[in-house]
Amino acid sequence: MYEELRKAVYDANVELQKRELVIYSWGNVSGIDHSRGVIAIKPSGVSYDELTPDKIVLVDLDGNIIEGTLKPSSDTPTHLELYRNFESIGGICHAHPTNATMWAQACREIPCFGTTSADYFYGSIPVTEVMTEDEIRSDYELNTGKCIVRRFGGMDPMKMPAVLVANHAPFTWGNSAAAAVESMVVLERTATMALGTITINPEQGPISKALLDKHYLRKHGKDAYYGQLES
Amino acid sequence: MYEELRKAVYDANVELQKRELVIYSWGNVSGIDHSRGVIAIKPSGVSYDELTPDKIVLVDLDGNIIEGTLKPSSDTPTHLELYRNFESIGGICHAHPTNATMWAQACREIPCFGTTSADYFYGSIPVTEVMTEDEIRSDYELNTGKCIVRRFGGMDPMKMPAVLVANHAPFTWGNSAAAAVESMVVLERTATMALGTITINPEQGPISKALLDKHYLRKHGKDAYYGQLES
Amino acid sequence: MYEELRKAVYDANVELQKRELVIYSWGNVSGIDHSRGVIAIKPSGVSYDELTPDKIVLVDLDGNIIEGTLKPSSDTPTHLELYRNFESIGGICHAHPTNATMWAQACREIPCFGTTSADYFYGSIPVTEVMTEDEIRSDYELNTGKCIVRRFGGMDPMKMPAVLVANHAPFTWGNSAAAAVESMVVLERTATMALGTITINPEQGPISKALLDKHYLRKHGKDAYYGQLES
Amino acid sequence: MYEELRKAVYDANVELQKRELVIYSWGNVSGIDHSRGVIAIKPSGVSYDELTPDKIVLVDLDGNIIEGTLKPSSDTPTHLELYRNFESIGGICHAHPTNATMWAQACREIPCFGTTSADYFYGSIPVTEVMTEDEIRSDYELNTGKCIVRRFGGMDPMKMPAVLVANHAPFTWGNSAAAAVESMVVLERTATMALGTITINPEQGPISKALLDKHYLRKHGKDAYYGQLES
Repeated sequence: MYEELRKAVYDANVELQKRELVIYSWGNVSGIDHSRGVIAIKPSGVSYDELTPDKIVLVDLDGNIIEGTLKPSSDTPTHLELYRNFESIGGICHAHPTNATMWAQACREIPCFGTTSADYFYGSIPVTEVMTEDEIRSDYELNTGKCIVRRFGGMDPMKMPAVLVANHAPFTWGNSAAAAVESMVVLERTATMALGTITINPEQGPISKALLDKHYLRKHGKDAYYGQLES
Repeated sequence: MYEELRKAVYDANVELQKRELVIYSWGNVSGIDHSRGVIAIKPSGVSYDELTPDKIVLVDLDGNIIEGTLKPSSDTPTHLELYRNFESIGGICHAHPTNATMWAQACREIPCFGTTSADYFYGSIPVTEVMTEDEIRSDYELNTGKCIVRRFGGMDPMKMPAVLVANHAPFTWGNSAAAAVESMVVLERTATMALGTITINPEQGPISKALLDKHYLRKHGKDAYYGQLES
Repeated sequence: MYEELRKAVYDANVELQKRELVIYSWGNVSGIDHSRGVIAIKPSGVSYDELTPDKIVLVDLDGNIIEGTLKPSSDTPTHLELYRNFESIGGICHAHPTNATMWAQACREIPCFGTTSADYFYGSIPVTEVMTEDEIRSDYELNTGKCIVRRFGGMDPMKMPAVLVANHAPFTWGNSAAAAVESMVVLERTATMALGTITINPEQGPISKALLDKHYLRKHGKDAYYGQLES
Repeated sequence: MYEELRKAVYDANVELQKRELVIYSWGNVSGIDHSRGVIAIKPSGVSYDELTPDKIVLVDLDGNIIEGTLKPSSDTPTHLELYRNFESIGGICHAHPTNATMWAQACREIPCFGTTSADYFYGSIPVTEVMTEDEIRSDYELNTGKCIVRRFGGMDPMKMPAVLVANHAPFTWGNSAAAAVESMVVLERTATMALGTITINPEQGPISKALLDKHYLRKHGKDAYYGQLES
């Protein structure tokens, strides 16, 4: 019944490793079946080399296990909080890729310095506030999700499919588990390029609204003209 | 009739991926048959893994499709503007390689800091002006080409087969599609080395005219003595 | 009798190369059989490509050779001093990985800037004092061990399985030879991320005690809840 | 008669590419047979993918071709000047590896910041003076060799098997063509680590004479105790 979802989430986890964004068990990808309210997610602490489709765990939006003999990722409460609040998203990815994590650790948003970023992210990549001691001590993973949702305010998560959790690492998403991983790949590139940009020119500011609109909107939305027409 | 051109452009696109200068569909290579006024170019939004020679699109210098069922690259108007103005070039490459893009995002030309660069580029790698809102809002891709041509003024494009488009990424070229990709490979190395150079010594200036002449001219032009004599 | 220990130490040495943390013979991993007081260690100056399990040398805690025809690693006295003082550890790794060695050469501890590090290391990665001329001139390798032990004072080595030897490179450890190598992998990542973090934000301080406790203790100790329950 | 020398030089050139220190034809390795005064060297402008042992060119110490149908490397006069002056060396390597070239372009010597470097290089890696216009305009490659020899003064080239040519790139050497390549590999690592070291701690000075002596001399000379005893 959930074979397809489980396989898609398995494939997305494998892709995360193939793209060299994780080592050991440092990441997790999930996907949601909106019609049934079921989330498939990587099991906790299982290394990518040992992962198989049948080890993917199924939970509902409250975190109850529906299928699976392993414990789901310890970050599951973060994923669930995002699915409950960002209803348009279909998949979530968490990892500690080197360059995006540098920015998260530096507690700095990544300015939109160029079209590479603007093709995917409609503005600067936001960073959350540093979490309070209370938020950390109890329900830490749930509060991580709340902290992200609070940072987004009214912002459309599909226009900004990435966030840096301060002192920690990024979460990304998209309309599927695969798309969430693609967001992570692009975020990591964006982070790498941004670090070089401020090293070369510490005064460099973000690109103009006109250029941001041009690149984002030529790939997304009703007036997009990049790529082939879908038939 | 255009099999050879299409194959050469396909091979050059594949080489771009093999050299790790593109991910997903982030780049495009074209080549021109000057005698017929026909350009072969990568289709828009097709990932490098899915690319085959028969998907390469043929257009004329005004952008009319001559052969091909797919839409040509969204950057086609930039390529055409360059072919119309730089008559000596035979191929063009556009990509977002990490280090060259850092310099483009920083809106800084890359000084000629050493012989690695001087062997291929006769001076500093130029950067365009930031495009105006008007240039961005209408005919953006055509205006990108005009902006490059304007930056070059009377400069010989074969002596400087690369440019950084400010806030965006590089374009490179050469006497063939393959040569355009080689220019991109060397530009990326040049950009990487230049970033390290200014980190080690922020006061470092470009090499002397004498050293630039020596290295560029021992590989190019009538007095070249590098490599084997062509028979 | 010691086949298993020798094989485990061989495998850990191979893993070190596979993780791209050594070239040529620049590293060594050892493991200890506490019940017998026997240490297995890589032979000196043997490149990783030529290493086989039977070349692993067995020594006792005073450095006497028990089995093996090759000389043990020249760093053996450092390993022995650590085993004599850090009784809880089961394996030790020494290497010169690029980024961790940068910090060792800069004589700077690596602040705990994020959860990636906190998942493995309970605080900043310590750096030893610069060794004195006397310590260097006689019994250098033994004194390297003494210098590390002195730096640790009363600190629990299992909570901080890594140290940077000033002007030199890191040593790491764990409850087995394999775990010692994993500590080195994570240290190298931590070092890479920390360098980027201070480049982006030179004022960045370490994470809060609350966040350090949360991440370290969710993976280690009696209240750990990360990963699968061991049965 | 020269099969062995030619093969050794071919193998060393291949190793240079395998270690990712060259792309295209950006490098050359040579070796000398001292008893016959014959040097084997890579042909000019031949890419590493096309190189075969029989393409290696043999020249005498004055540059006269002894065997081979191809032109020798355009850098041959530099190699010959080094062989004529550094009589103890058996092989020379020239390449443009990314990080060592950054230092050469920055016209800065690489301080000996740690034991990784001290194991191979007995002090800081020297950089030549910037060459004069006269030296560049005539007999450039010969003058490059003279400039290196002048920089070394009375220094023993076997204790410092590397030099950075200002504005250009490194040359390395050793007692064979293979050893010259190993020197290049280690130089590139040293350069990478040194760049990180000054980024982390701009005030960092070189290691003490005592530590330099300890590491260099435990691997080289009559009191060396690193590695296995040669039988």
